[in-house]
Amino acid sequence: MTIHYPKGIKPLPEGKGVKKSKKLHLGHSAANRGMGFEADINESNAYYLEHDLCLVTKRPTPINVVKVDYTHGAKITQAYFETQSTTDYNGVYEGHYLDFEAKSTQSKTSFPLHNIPPQQIDHLKRVLRHGGIAFFIINCYAIGQTYILAAKDVIDFYEAKPRASIPMKDILSKGYLVKEGYNPRYDYLAVVKAHFLK
Amino acid sequence: MTIHYPKGIKPLPEGKGVKKSKKLHLGHSAANRGMGFEADINESNAYYLEHDLCLVTKRPTPINVVKVDYTHGAKITQAYFETQSTTDYNGVYEGHYLDFEAKSTQSKTSFPLHNIPPQQIDHLKRVLRHGGIAFFIINCYAIGQTYILAAKDVIDFYEAKPRASIPMKDILSKGYLVKEGYNPRYDYLAVVKAHFLK
Repeated sequence: MTIHYPKGIKPLPEGKGVKKSKKLHLGHSAANRGMGFEADINESNAYYLEHDLCLVTKRPTPINVVKVDYTHGAKITQAYFETQSTTDYNGVYEGHYLDFEAKSTQSKTSFPLHNIPPQQIDHLKRVLRHGGIAFFIINCYAIGQTYILAAKDVIDFYEAKPRASIPMKDILSKGYLVKEGYNPRYDYLAVVKAHFLK
Repeated sequence: MTIHYPKGIKPLPEGKGVKKSKKLHLGHSAANRGMGFEADINESNAYYLEHDLCLVTKRPTPINVVKVDYTHGAKITQAYFETQSTTDYNGVYEGHYLDFEAKSTQSKTSFPLHNIPPQQIDHLKRVLRHGGIAFFIINCYAIGQTYILAAKDVIDFYEAKPRASIPMKDILSKGYLVKEGYNPRYDYLAVVKAHFLK
């Protein structure tokens, strides 16, 4: 199965287009694919919202604002992107709290953990302690499939040093395949319903 | 009871200090008090986090990034504040999804609704439809008390045109008084436990 990314990705809120350009500028085509996957998750959320199936929102990218020019309205003239200390997505399904991160990997053999900041792991542990549903949705670009891996499993791998990645075989065995389609692009809610409700 | 706002409000994440300056610049002392209240809610959340009582995070202020200078790292040189289309806070308590907005009013007689955008009302309706717990925490500055009002009540008032505000007597009768203290500053979780769990 091949994933066809749209050439014209819809503009996303809060400067996502700019972030994408930034990554393109730095020559990270994988990051660009990552942005495409994020756009698809946003579209899936919009579908769920429109059809009243669940309510999941993307947290805006945190930005540290340093200078604002008030000459004509409020124009930010100096600011910097900050790292999200939580995950990108959270929301509610039938009263349950959902919290997840969407990631892409181009590796055929594993999902690298080095770009998951420790504070995100701490955040996910807290979500689980407070009874929330937490997971990663991992777009395995090279094999053309997307899996949901429970936060518990990701945390276990993260803490089993010195491993720096989750082998693809473990993603396939422990993860849940996410059905892809036109609308929703990634039906992650079906996996939540089938495997994450208590 | 008098509320003593600290003179030196702690710096907040994602350019809150700048937003505060912006409002000060515009001469809105009420807005400044509002920022003080928001800072207190953030501190209450930090207390709950530290004591592992619940997990509530503030959504970063959405910012529309227009230009980024990549000469030295990524410096945003043109951007604008956007209106939050959701609420400012959400999180999880014992598996339940929480979603709320923190507001201040300096009026002695009512809580004005004109600065609640319609999309925030839509958002709160969705939260309720999906089984989440939703409310406003309203700092009634003039009477030195803070009340939690269920989102349902705020929505009812909002839709009962041509009312443009919620009378203070209704806040007192329908709302739940939030206990103030040193730590947590506003113990809103006690109200959630007592009145919002099914």
